Amino acid sequence: MLALRQALLSPRSVAIVGQSNDPAKTAGRPLKFLRQAGYAGRVYPVNARRDEVLGERAFASLAALPEVPEHVYVVTPTEAAVEAIEECGRLGVRVATVLADGFAEAGPAGEAREARLRDVVARTGLRIVGPSSLGVVNLRDGVMLTANAAFDEKDLPVGRIFAASHSGTMIGALLSRGKARHIGFAGLVSVGNEVDLSVGEICAATLDDPDIDGYLLFLETLRKAASLRAFALAAAARGKPVLAYKLGRSSAARELAVSHTGALAGEDDVAEAFLADCGIARVETFEALIEGLPLVARVPARPRGARPAAVAVVTTTAGGAATVVDPLAARGITIAPPSAETYARLDAAGIAVARARIVDLTIAGARYEVMKGALDILLGAPEFDLVVAVVGSSARFHPELALKPIIDRAGAGKPLAAFVVPDAPQALARLSAAGVPCFRTPEACADAVAAALRRRVPVPAVVRQSAPPGGGRLLDELEAYALLDRLGLARAPGVALAATISRAPALPFPYPVAAKLLGEIAHKSDIGGVALGIADGAGLVAAVAKMRAAVGAHGHQMDRVLVQPMIAGVGEALIGYRVDRDVGPLVMVAAGGVFTEIYRDRSLRLAPVDLDTARDMIAEVRGLKVLAGYRGKPAGDLDALARAVVALSQLALDETVAEAEINPLIVRPTGQGVIAVDALAKLNE
Amino acid sequence: MLALRQALLSPRSVAIVGQSNDPAKTAGRPLKFLRQAGYAGRVYPVNARRDEVLGERAFASLAALPEVPEHVYVVTPTEAAVEAIEECGRLGVRVATVLADGFAEAGPAGEAREARLRDVVARTGLRIVGPSSLGVVNLRDGVMLTANAAFDEKDLPVGRIFAASHSGTMIGALLSRGKARHIGFAGLVSVGNEVDLSVGEICAATLDDPDIDGYLLFLETLRKAASLRAFALAAAARGKPVLAYKLGRSSAARELAVSHTGALAGEDDVAEAFLADCGIARVETFEALIEGLPLVARVPARPRGARPAAVAVVTTTAGGAATVVDPLAARGITIAPPSAETYARLDAAGIAVARARIVDLTIAGARYEVMKGALDILLGAPEFDLVVAVVGSSARFHPELALKPIIDRAGAGKPLAAFVVPDAPQALARLSAAGVPCFRTPEACADAVAAALRRRVPVPAVVRQSAPPGGGRLLDELEAYALLDRLGLARAPGVALAATISRAPALPFPYPVAAKLLGEIAHKSDIGGVALGIADGAGLVAAVAKMRAAVGAHGHQMDRVLVQPMIAGVGEALIGYRVDRDVGPLVMVAAGGVFTEIYRDRSLRLAPVDLDTARDMIAEVRGLKVLAGYRGKPAGDLDALARAVVALSQLALDETVAEAEINPLIVRPTGQGVIAVDALAKLNE
Repeated sequence: MLALRQALLSPRSVAIVGQSNDPAKTAGRPLKFLRQAGYAGRVYPVNARRDEVLGERAFASLAALPEVPEHVYVVTPTEAAVEAIEECGRLGVRVATVLADGFAEAGPAGEAREARLRDVVARTGLRIVGPSSLGVVNLRDGVMLTANAAFDEKDLPVGRIFAASHSGTMIGALLSRGKARHIGFAGLVSVGNEVDLSVGEICAATLDDPDIDGYLLFLETLRKAASLRAFALAAAARGKPVLAYKLGRSSAARELAVSHTGALAGEDDVAEAFLADCGIARVETFEALIEGLPLVARVPARPRGARPAAVAVVTTTAGGAATVVDPLAARGITIAPPSAETYARLDAAGIAVARARIVDLTIAGARYEVMKGALDILLGAPEFDLVVAVVGSSARFHPELALKPIIDRAGAGKPLAAFVVPDAPQALARLSAAGVPCFRTPEACADAVAAALRRRVPVPAVVRQSAPPGGGRLLDELEAYALLDRLGLARAPGVALAATISRAPALPFPYPVAAKLLGEIAHKSDIGGVALGIADGAGLVAAVAKMRAAVGAHGHQMDRVLVQPMIAGVGEALIGYRVDRDVGPLVMVAAGGVFTEIYRDRSLRLAPVDLDTARDMIAEVRGLKVLAGYRGKPAGDLDALARAVVALSQLALDETVAEAEINPLIVRPTGQGVIAVDALAKLNE
Repeated sequence: MLALRQALLSPRSVAIVGQSNDPAKTAGRPLKFLRQAGYAGRVYPVNARRDEVLGERAFASLAALPEVPEHVYVVTPTEAAVEAIEECGRLGVRVATVLADGFAEAGPAGEAREARLRDVVARTGLRIVGPSSLGVVNLRDGVMLTANAAFDEKDLPVGRIFAASHSGTMIGALLSRGKARHIGFAGLVSVGNEVDLSVGEICAATLDDPDIDGYLLFLETLRKAASLRAFALAAAARGKPVLAYKLGRSSAARELAVSHTGALAGEDDVAEAFLADCGIARVETFEALIEGLPLVARVPARPRGARPAAVAVVTTTAGGAATVVDPLAARGITIAPPSAETYARLDAAGIAVARARIVDLTIAGARYEVMKGALDILLGAPEFDLVVAVVGSSARFHPELALKPIIDRAGAGKPLAAFVVPDAPQALARLSAAGVPCFRTPEACADAVAAALRRRVPVPAVVRQSAPPGGGRLLDELEAYALLDRLGLARAPGVALAATISRAPALPFPYPVAAKLLGEIAHKSDIGGVALGIADGAGLVAAVAKMRAAVGAHGHQMDRVLVQPMIAGVGEALIGYRVDRDVGPLVMVAAGGVFTEIYRDRSLRLAPVDLDTARDMIAEVRGLKVLAGYRGKPAGDLDALARAVVALSQLALDETVAEAEINPLIVRPTGQGVIAVDALAKLNE
């Protein structure tokens, strides 16, 4: 069968179904753009109502063509598009791209249409881009299968970056904003609603293209996360960086993605964890997406458990440098002062700098030798992972002073990034041409530096990533404990009693105790099903009777009660596992309690995780600082907590469990471990 | 005496002390720039070693001039600068600007030099800009008293904005980046280290200038907050908006400001509260500072207690609009869908839009009538405070479609802002020329919209703003309670006992009780000075004995103990008052406990506050959501909490108190009030 990559991006023959004779209309653009770009393959306009479009012969149907085209762009309205796709399937077309909307996002009728597309894909060798795709472009070969008005432009720079976007408009923004920064693309695909080919599959098809060095993704959703992960892992293996901007940091934007694309919208920290575990760098600002790849390409991905990265900032203007330091520090990046050795080297080189967090060359002077000398020393200093050079007004007027030395250090082994304080497009162009990653705003600079430094070595995908059936039964607490026992997680002992006890039972542990409704009910405490700190046997009998009445009043029957010793620690944590609908098995750690929810303070990773990763996760949860010896309080056994996270994450290898949560997990003092005193688990069907 | 405004910005005669004959040197620039700009006043270069500089006669000293110049720019090295300032004082010069550094930021010798400058100001009529000032510029009159290389530029646009900056380099960035966006300035001042004239005083001097419409501030510190506040209040009274970018969101950048400027760096949320109470809009991104003023000027400041603002987003590209929605929502701004009435109006106008959080015109089409009709309806809809229009690729190629209607609606009463998705400098220029606030990046757009909508009506300054002496004594808890009684704040009853009791005392309230060390010690619990939940008399005697031993072991003597009933509520809060070194009296509310610190979750205002403000503050504290009926928990008496905040804030009117804190303040169920169970207060000397 014809290689997907060829049919998708380098077809030798293409057809435009619905090509209009009016080049100003959306459906008139593809043929116009193909001709403007000098596409060398065979082009077949298809128009049922005209013999000629834009001065070329038009065919009545796909079946009437003299050959089966390798790629068909369907630019008709929705119903006709479905028919065209069915014809593509019948004829043996390899790839078809669909412009129309009106599918899954458009209610039941649209879903039915989408099912027809899926059916063609399942039955034939056809692969579909879209629907709602503004098209597929390979700028190197003039393949302009696009209805995107943004391509109506001369002198589009050709580059070595491949871009994929859920939004067609943002393809135009990448193109024009990239052009303004002299950044070109090899290819750009508006992936639309991914009924068949996903962002991941489309990008993966280009991985062996020797003229593509890296990837930019504009994501509105994580619709087919498994294929995105597979692509990201393969890209990492080839040393090709992937930089993504993902909408949906706010719930308002997530809601928008739902109404706009028909996709479901997960929580943003799930997307964040997913992208990070895929080794995909994520930026927050759109400009950093355009400007950031050269820097990401130069910063090695960090292994798990590595020490936090440290950045040196060297500048001819402290005020200008501070505009980068502020957003960089806000992203948790350490801006480190030079070591004593590095200061000694600066002194020896006659470069006078104050002892401060940044290397301010104001006193030494904005001169070539000064900046060059400082860069030589900082790029050679082992304490820094990356150097940011911030140049003031001289970048606009006298580039030979402080800009040129940065250009002359472009080949340095250590990553170097530049921010230019004044408006200085020529300075940026010179830096870019020399291969120095550089930025127009301090915020984009900080954003890209942080994204590059945070990029991690991706986690191998050891488990299936598709969401499981779910819907299985909730385990009662004793059954959930059995699961914890299997995973090697310490938990409180427990005795199951009949809920009708009238005399104090003999217990294998001392009072005070806790008593809890034992049954397949998730929110026991909401219906009066929990009593804590029961002091003695009489109290236990009374508490169970009261509980039975309360639970009954909520319409539940209570047959059994679980009695456990009260277990004290220096604090609590919450750990959880679930198979996320979008990204698959996830493990979570949080401080527990109401603050976890209010402050959204939790750390997530794709499961399973190793011990280094679990330690990184614990360090990310601000609320767990109270267990790390905060303000003289006794420290908790965070190593045991990390081991518990690792153990729980092993559920990713167990196809039967859909979710599990330990809340609270009592954290005891250092060396004394952690112990689960409540647990919840749900099976798959 | 000569008006400050004239001498500062429109002097009829100027002298440059230290003017160099080399125009490439920093000290060579002022004369060069004055002549380039065609300054019409009298210019006196002063150079002790030359008769001529840059082809003009040079004078040997200020005393040798034929007149006393109105404004002297001193561009000599540090020591000579101090002497020149002393000469200015002797001669009766009105304003002198000092370029040199080497003052307060440079240790004891520098501080001594700075004291000499202050002495001249105190003894004479001289006012000083700087030191470390790159100069004072009035572009309208060619007053270029500046050594800033950024002014070596032709065709600088003259505008109606006045800019003041702690950083000289950022003046250059405002100038060149403003020029690239066709934004001009009336004047720009590099205020330097504010030994005398502050940002606030310099701006205030221009308030009656009819050709200045608004102010941009680039702040590294709040060195003279009282004058900044006075200026902001006066600007608000004249309807002249003030937009600020303040460094120091991160502690790394604050540390930088300290080392760089010699200023002390306060916490960022204090600066945030101060600027907000001054009615100054604050942006986070540098580009929003440059682009944001036209929008801020159009959005009325919000009164205290007003409902949150709501924004409509209308677009030809949902993906592009989402890039604005995301950072806007992240800043807490509500993006609201249209009301049923508004939808009905859109339907009646034949504008097909999906029911979603934004008004997406994709289906209706990117045509003039569609965008114009939608804008007419949205700008007339009462549910919106502001409309953001986001235009896709057509803005670059076909401005007549979706851009022109925005321009044609520029005169609308309701604020309208535009973001253009592709690179489209001409579209931005057309929008700006028509008076439509517009933005180059989605992040700057969101930043400016949020800053404009959050800008509040400033709080009148009813109290002195200077930091008081402090250093007075710490009150014991009973004395602090007396203070609360005076303020009308409910507090727990308490009985003072001798710390030597050996028999259970008669108490006017039932057990259980709390016992606390009574004395002038701030952190009682750290030295074992607190016992809670004492069940009976015997327990009390034992607890007091134990406490006395513990306190003694910490080297303190304990003579008295305070006994109070244990008081239960549905939760706790922390409220505090202090006179901040930078900004003056402040009141604070937080959820209390370790999370207040870890999550930096507190709300601050300049004190005193009214009830509406206190309610706004409580709503800002995320941790206090647990007291607002969160997840079915009983609601706390947040109205009483608000009244308590108001009462405590009245300490701003009491010159004797330096700080006071109630922690915890027990919050009882709705209608049952709040009650202080611990209090701390410190007097002024």
